[in-house]
Amino acid sequence: MAVLGPNRYGKAETRVVRVTRHGDAHRIKDLTVSTALAGDLAEVHLSGDNSAVLPTDSQKNTIFAFAKRHGVGAIEDFALLLARHFVDSQPAIHHARVAVEEHAWERNGAFGHSFVRSGREVRTCVAHHDGTGSWVVSGLRDLVVLNTTDSEFRGFAKDEYTTLPETSDRVLATAVDVSWRHADVSRDGSPDVSPDWDKAYEKARAALLTAFADTYSLSLQQTLYAMGTRVLAECPGICEVRLSLPNRHHFLVDLAPFGLPNDGEVFFAADRPYGLIEGTVLREDAPDAGPAWE
Amino acid sequence: MAVLGPNRYGKAETRVVRVTRHGDAHRIKDLTVSTALAGDLAEVHLSGDNSAVLPTDSQKNTIFAFAKRHGVGAIEDFALLLARHFVDSQPAIHHARVAVEEHAWERNGAFGHSFVRSGREVRTCVAHHDGTGSWVVSGLRDLVVLNTTDSEFRGFAKDEYTTLPETSDRVLATAVDVSWRHADVSRDGSPDVSPDWDKAYEKARAALLTAFADTYSLSLQQTLYAMGTRVLAECPGICEVRLSLPNRHHFLVDLAPFGLPNDGEVFFAADRPYGLIEGTVLREDAPDAGPAWE
Amino acid sequence: MAVLGPNRYGKAETRVVRVTRHGDAHRIKDLTVSTALAGDLAEVHLSGDNSAVLPTDSQKNTIFAFAKRHGVGAIEDFALLLARHFVDSQPAIHHARVAVEEHAWERNGAFGHSFVRSGREVRTCVAHHDGTGSWVVSGLRDLVVLNTTDSEFRGFAKDEYTTLPETSDRVLATAVDVSWRHADVSRDGSPDVSPDWDKAYEKARAALLTAFADTYSLSLQQTLYAMGTRVLAECPGICEVRLSLPNRHHFLVDLAPFGLPNDGEVFFAADRPYGLIEGTVLREDAPDAGPAWE
Amino acid sequence: MAVLGPNRYGKAETRVVRVTRHGDAHRIKDLTVSTALAGDLAEVHLSGDNSAVLPTDSQKNTIFAFAKRHGVGAIEDFALLLARHFVDSQPAIHHARVAVEEHAWERNGAFGHSFVRSGREVRTCVAHHDGTGSWVVSGLRDLVVLNTTDSEFRGFAKDEYTTLPETSDRVLATAVDVSWRHADVSRDGSPDVSPDWDKAYEKARAALLTAFADTYSLSLQQTLYAMGTRVLAECPGICEVRLSLPNRHHFLVDLAPFGLPNDGEVFFAADRPYGLIEGTVLREDAPDAGPAWE
Repeated sequence: MAVLGPNRYGKAETRVVRVTRHGDAHRIKDLTVSTALAGDLAEVHLSGDNSAVLPTDSQKNTIFAFAKRHGVGAIEDFALLLARHFVDSQPAIHHARVAVEEHAWERNGAFGHSFVRSGREVRTCVAHHDGTGSWVVSGLRDLVVLNTTDSEFRGFAKDEYTTLPETSDRVLATAVDVSWRHADVSRDGSPDVSPDWDKAYEKARAALLTAFADTYSLSLQQTLYAMGTRVLAECPGICEVRLSLPNRHHFLVDLAPFGLPNDGEVFFAADRPYGLIEGTVLREDAPDAGPAWE
Repeated sequence: MAVLGPNRYGKAETRVVRVTRHGDAHRIKDLTVSTALAGDLAEVHLSGDNSAVLPTDSQKNTIFAFAKRHGVGAIEDFALLLARHFVDSQPAIHHARVAVEEHAWERNGAFGHSFVRSGREVRTCVAHHDGTGSWVVSGLRDLVVLNTTDSEFRGFAKDEYTTLPETSDRVLATAVDVSWRHADVSRDGSPDVSPDWDKAYEKARAALLTAFADTYSLSLQQTLYAMGTRVLAECPGICEVRLSLPNRHHFLVDLAPFGLPNDGEVFFAADRPYGLIEGTVLREDAPDAGPAWE
Repeated sequence: MAVLGPNRYGKAETRVVRVTRHGDAHRIKDLTVSTALAGDLAEVHLSGDNSAVLPTDSQKNTIFAFAKRHGVGAIEDFALLLARHFVDSQPAIHHARVAVEEHAWERNGAFGHSFVRSGREVRTCVAHHDGTGSWVVSGLRDLVVLNTTDSEFRGFAKDEYTTLPETSDRVLATAVDVSWRHADVSRDGSPDVSPDWDKAYEKARAALLTAFADTYSLSLQQTLYAMGTRVLAECPGICEVRLSLPNRHHFLVDLAPFGLPNDGEVFFAADRPYGLIEGTVLREDAPDAGPAWE
Repeated sequence: MAVLGPNRYGKAETRVVRVTRHGDAHRIKDLTVSTALAGDLAEVHLSGDNSAVLPTDSQKNTIFAFAKRHGVGAIEDFALLLARHFVDSQPAIHHARVAVEEHAWERNGAFGHSFVRSGREVRTCVAHHDGTGSWVVSGLRDLVVLNTTDSEFRGFAKDEYTTLPETSDRVLATAVDVSWRHADVSRDGSPDVSPDWDKAYEKARAALLTAFADTYSLSLQQTLYAMGTRVLAECPGICEVRLSLPNRHHFLVDLAPFGLPNDGEVFFAADRPYGLIEGTVLREDAPDAGPAWE
């Protein structure tokens, strides 16, 4: 017989821009917010009884209203605020997940009211709240990096389908997609701990960039692990790092048919297929993740 | 101290087209294949020792070679074949995950060698093998469906941020993203059970389409549950169904300012935000999922 | 000194879905409509005087209102209706361009109210009206076709950078992007001629598909020309055809390192770069195109 | 009777990355190059005779070989070099069009070999050469800008479909897509004039950004014209500017139902539809454009 398993619902990708006007020097925060609520929702699935269902439209309205009422600082705080609100105010809702993406802008020159969208990576976070505790994962995606040297790939396993030559100097490029879990948010009635999210972000980002550059790479896995450990070393409040690194292959073009050498100068940047390296680095004493990664 | 957590690596999105030529009537299978291997891979992360690492390039070559040697029938069989190969042939690899997407083509008229890409949904599968057993999840994505009536949304919870009016007749549209788990594949040395994957696919697809249409919908959650239960009812070999249904809002346009009625005739199809309804329907006696959904 | 050159403005990509309810058997038309108006618009550019500017929001409203009032039949008729309306009703507007894309749906089984989005190509049209005459270009895009044989590429020019081997049997695949110009729409006060747009569409589409399949191809250019001439041969009301055909390369995979032959059986479908073949086929006596292609 | 009209062919979107290694401080140029050749190509269309057709594969090879042999400085120089090469070396080719896009990278900290992809706009150019002269258009796309104030939209034309309220303070945002034509490149055997492309680029970009910010905007058309005239004023070598400015609507959210004011603080960023403003600004004495914009 069929039964209902895990389920949740919400409003995805609400695009909200919050302007703050302090005299002539304005500030903007540009977010994409997605909510997902879970709880006593069996009836709506089984019989279509909506009495426990707060409309996704109301969730969207709440995002806009909270942006006005509370302002938008660090996206983690905004996500937590929303997650707690839904659980605290809706009797049927026992768990809320709020994901926020932040799109970066820079000032357009000295003008206080004019901005240029920065091509910097997208900053991300996911907050969970279940009434007894909260969990926060932060991160970024689309941080594209490339090393022109200090990367090898040799000594690998070979089978009958292996034709790849070994190389002691290659281009290494990837689009970093990473999330890190904060150890200390409130749990089980413990007092609220609010990390300095922005500072943690800048430190984690810097650690990732530096580790990518200063690791002499024998494999992308090694680089991944170095990046993860560096984040943990630099950021005491972070207990776990998950990285997904596509290997953006840059193939050395064979110019010999044209009588030309190619000592690491001309590359073809391929689209697909691509290697994909995924891995987790965590503290030995990391607390249980709970629903943080869901 | 930092430790290595779960990790895997492989080649993503290899695009392979397999042509079979029986006289003048050719057949094509058009696949996107992604492999991911896990096992004794600590050393490559910690020290860059690649001796356990079969290159992702070799994985790609294997896909092409197997497409020739074994042909391509149901994508589930092809995925299992590859997954078992990597685990069985590589001492360091203890787990393989192979995902395949199939892009549908139709014959171009009566020509045996000419084809038109069908806009039908993408058929998907993910196979896992760990040396002792195998798991298979099949599914589809981008199956876009719409009902012009027989959909309400009323009696929902209301809070101070609720402005949505109730409606007793709306357009209901979604892009179905669904996966179903097959109960009976080999496990723990049991003899291999090979479902008729193609038949299961057609029955599951038909069940989804019919349930979407013949369910008088009081909420998208109710429709989701109806779709999942219908798949289970029609397909005895399937033990679990996971659905992700974006609510592709079609807003009734207010034509009153122009002196026109709008009795469900003119709609604005919105992009973002959108409701997102996610849920699982499973048999009470479904076997443990193991790594099937990873 | 700077002067204002050609300019236009409008509302792009209004997504309108029109439902027609005849008893239980509903019909839907799913369109993306873009308007662009030109005329006496110097002042708004030079001084910001908006008195000649009908808001793009009003253009959007007009699309919705016309969808209700006039219904939506062939997209060409709907585009012409809108184009003429803007020129006829706005004193400052002397030229309107309306582009419409139609997304195809099929019935979901026997249900009168349920539909499945078809993956068929997107049908397109662009209508121009300038107060004295009208021009209509129709077409389609994303019609992906593939021949598994009957395609060669030999005897080409060679220079010092040529390494491509000749081939007498290859896969030929493309995503057809084509537009055709209708000769007979109203011009200079001549009575209105309204071709049977739907019939012309089906005939042109069939001609393209058949010519792609039954042309033994020595080059994609030859195939392009054959497709264009076929459309002209089958459709007397069409005077010009413009095709843009990306060569979706399917590279034969070298399986020799694995001891396997590959007689046109296993291909790698590449993304970029791709050949791009563009060409026009027209009747010798085609009337002047006027603004049709702008 | 059918005849062949305008046609061209080439290799689109070749992705080439050029590394220059001066000791430890490397440089990279990351380009997407598209070629299109025209000339005596009737026979290949009519009969499939490829003797005049230099394969698109050879064109791709040429791009790679030239990147090695000549290096890559300003993309305009690279595009001209390629365009002239094809016309000068291929007897059947009388016209070449080469388009180049440049993806920007920044140094990753102080590391000489490590780079971060900048999210800055994409720099573009198109060069034409026909054996007697050359034409160059430069530009950029995806430069996303936003003003939080100093934008009105009032006094516009109103018809029966107008419901938009007038506003004296709105957010104005757009993604700038612009191209500018250089007046002085070689023509008709005149000596070659090579503008300082990089300097022109930086000046044009700065002019666009400044004009966007310091124009008190009564309409996006007015802002467009101001941006174009500013480029002409700052860059004497540029004779024509073409702009395409989508109006990225930021709608003020109505928070009144929640008892909240919204004085330009909370906006919903919409996707579709969007206004689209297109216009040209040119010098009165601009030379004939020839094939520059084709």
